[in-house]
Amino acid sequence: MHVYICTMQLHSDTIVAISTPAGSGAIGVIRLSGPEAIDIAGKVFSRNLEKAAGHTLHYGNILKNGEILDEAVAAIFIGPRSYTKEDVVEFSCHGSPYILREVLMLLVDKGARLAQPGEFTQRAYLNGAMDLAQAEAVADLIASTSAGAHQLAMNQMRGGISRELKDLREQLLNFTSLIELELDFGEEDVEFADRTQLSELVVRITERLSSLIDSFQFGNAIKQGVPTVIMGKPNAGKSTLLNTLLNENRAIVSDIPGTTRDVIEDRIVIQGIEFRLMDTAGVRETVDQIEAEGVSRTLALAQKASLVIYIFDRKTDTLEEAQAYLKTADLPESAQIILLGNKSDLVSDKPNGSFLPISAKAHEGIDQLRERMVEAVQAFSQHDPDQAVISNVRHLTALRKAAAALEEVQQGLEMGITGDLLAIDIRTVLHYIGEITGEISTDEVLGNIFSRFCIGK
Amino acid sequence: MHVYICTMQLHSDTIVAISTPAGSGAIGVIRLSGPEAIDIAGKVFSRNLEKAAGHTLHYGNILKNGEILDEAVAAIFIGPRSYTKEDVVEFSCHGSPYILREVLMLLVDKGARLAQPGEFTQRAYLNGAMDLAQAEAVADLIASTSAGAHQLAMNQMRGGISRELKDLREQLLNFTSLIELELDFGEEDVEFADRTQLSELVVRITERLSSLIDSFQFGNAIKQGVPTVIMGKPNAGKSTLLNTLLNENRAIVSDIPGTTRDVIEDRIVIQGIEFRLMDTAGVRETVDQIEAEGVSRTLALAQKASLVIYIFDRKTDTLEEAQAYLKTADLPESAQIILLGNKSDLVSDKPNGSFLPISAKAHEGIDQLRERMVEAVQAFSQHDPDQAVISNVRHLTALRKAAAALEEVQQGLEMGITGDLLAIDIRTVLHYIGEITGEISTDEVLGNIFSRFCIGK
Repeated sequence: MHVYICTMQLHSDTIVAISTPAGSGAIGVIRLSGPEAIDIAGKVFSRNLEKAAGHTLHYGNILKNGEILDEAVAAIFIGPRSYTKEDVVEFSCHGSPYILREVLMLLVDKGARLAQPGEFTQRAYLNGAMDLAQAEAVADLIASTSAGAHQLAMNQMRGGISRELKDLREQLLNFTSLIELELDFGEEDVEFADRTQLSELVVRITERLSSLIDSFQFGNAIKQGVPTVIMGKPNAGKSTLLNTLLNENRAIVSDIPGTTRDVIEDRIVIQGIEFRLMDTAGVRETVDQIEAEGVSRTLALAQKASLVIYIFDRKTDTLEEAQAYLKTADLPESAQIILLGNKSDLVSDKPNGSFLPISAKAHEGIDQLRERMVEAVQAFSQHDPDQAVISNVRHLTALRKAAAALEEVQQGLEMGITGDLLAIDIRTVLHYIGEITGEISTDEVLGNIFSRFCIGK
Repeated sequence: MHVYICTMQLHSDTIVAISTPAGSGAIGVIRLSGPEAIDIAGKVFSRNLEKAAGHTLHYGNILKNGEILDEAVAAIFIGPRSYTKEDVVEFSCHGSPYILREVLMLLVDKGARLAQPGEFTQRAYLNGAMDLAQAEAVADLIASTSAGAHQLAMNQMRGGISRELKDLREQLLNFTSLIELELDFGEEDVEFADRTQLSELVVRITERLSSLIDSFQFGNAIKQGVPTVIMGKPNAGKSTLLNTLLNENRAIVSDIPGTTRDVIEDRIVIQGIEFRLMDTAGVRETVDQIEAEGVSRTLALAQKASLVIYIFDRKTDTLEEAQAYLKTADLPESAQIILLGNKSDLVSDKPNGSFLPISAKAHEGIDQLRERMVEAVQAFSQHDPDQAVISNVRHLTALRKAAAALEEVQQGLEMGITGDLLAIDIRTVLHYIGEITGEISTDEVLGNIFSRFCIGK
């Protein structure tokens, strides 16, 4: 199925890498994969591994010129029952950087080649153990720092979007085949592919693609952390709110308006969702040049925010003023806004429900704020939570190109263009969808993807 | 055999820890050890591990409330065929700090206890898989950064000094038993223990202990890096030599005498031996207060050096002057000295063999210097290279105490003291030798040793 299948020839060598993080630890793992994995491992090991069964462990010594380099356990995986579908040996050594380096060089000496970043996973992909979207999810999984990001990566790794895309692609492929069959009949006026059914399919696929494209904002925010800008006039209590949410003295707070100039960023995880909280300079006209620069940065940040927390001082400011400011602030349409009335412990008038009353200093209303933040994130994922979500820019780009090509198909159908032209447009759609799961791939694309992996994965 | 055997009762629980270094990587390993290891692992795993044979691998999912936390491989070791001699399960997960933390907490939730630093190795010791000196060597092995330190730790881990000490202890123990038997016969004038043979044994053991004590300087230098001080008058070329040895611009060099004030330290490994090179302020009378402080630091360092590299400028200085200075310099007796005549590319007179001519700037004579440095280290290990070497301060202390007690025994024998007094002195020797291998140990000693281990080992 892979267009890339030809390069499998290149992978007749055996690769090796240290697979555990750098540094000292109890255990360090060195992984070999390839046709010679067991043979090369056996050359340095005190135990004979030749007849070792798959999925077994063997305790012994790693020897270099007859000297013991380490006592280690060798884990044997016989392909295709392994991560890469090749023979794999994992040596579990003492976690000493010196020992691991020595063992690594010894294995290279015995015929293994140092693995490129992500090369084990690349082999898993090329050998059909996973598709490209799943392979990409492996890196996302390792990088995940919140339950949300973890779940997203896990769904993708387990084939979440792949299944759906493959299914859509399959249906489209059937139609193309029929249309291409028509072409074989040349001048005869046959129509194997029902144009009405095709049109319906195109509408259905367009809907799904656009839903996936829409899911990117949510997926990306979950993966990278939701960009959340805390805005408000000077001295409204933005830095105090940041510190309260973080439960530490991250930002310098004072009664002097304009204390914060630089953008202060930190991360919190609420109910498994990571927020990239940005405390900013208060928005006001100012003659202080440094502060003015801070204000312009605030406005630039707000343009990219998925969530804006606007905070006003209930002692000195009114709800109307805050709402008026937000109307002029030119925030992105997709951004969710939470309006907070701060210093509520110092005022007696009742809030009217159109903002959340809090006291950042007295820690009042903070739990409600956390709830609202989570709800806001759920709000910009307006789709069915069980459906696939994309979080990868490469997928977004490919989906957009597929959607554009699909529009051409739709227009072509409306205009009644000939089968050959229609087939070309459909092939373009198939190409871009296939890029996501890696049915279509190039060296450049693979290089880009796997170079971002860590060594040893 | 362990005096400590009573506390084994405490180890009926199952411990768990992340055993790979902190940080992101391809693989992260979580290790469980204890009677419930397989049971607890089975509770979170998609595969039934109950009947899993020892030394087998099982691929499956780690589940938390029905959600997949990770795809992992479980390695099963059935006690006593395991590191701790208990049942051990090692989960090989994706190396994501988030996932590892989640899996760890899940296992704690299912009944495992977070392991203390070194607790797996402590159990290995308490369960008789290794003695205390071997257990200590595990930490040394992980910390080793040179071939020398690695070999030292590996020898110790494989029982190098333990075997010898146990053998000596055994022989002494036989004599004590005989002497103690005499005591049972009370007033009767029997002598089961041949005093002449005992005296010979005491001499033999004294020799071995003193040889082991002497080996500490070598062993410790190899383990920690050989403390090597580069000394000489200002502008002799000390910093240039440091840079040349390190192959980088570590120290600032200039033609101005007194450029280096702080002690600059860096490490190099030559033929598997690590040297802690210290570049110092040139030794001269000075009015510059900062420089004067530097000079006094140089002299203090030289007091602790195992190797002193004294460098003089052949253009401006004479061999005699250098030798004269070294005589007055009050260097430690055990220190090896290498005398270098620098700037040899700028002089024409032939060296007379009592110093090594080099040019630090022109990289001349540097290979010979490296050779000399290695020879110097071998020189201060004047014992048979195949014999055991100690590198641990705790062992040194115990050996010194044992040697002192042994001297008491020898004196007692010479004075013909009674068997009961002799037995007490011999028991003291046995006690201190037993401390090294852990036949005698206390909570405090064990706490000290294992608290220096990393978590998960």
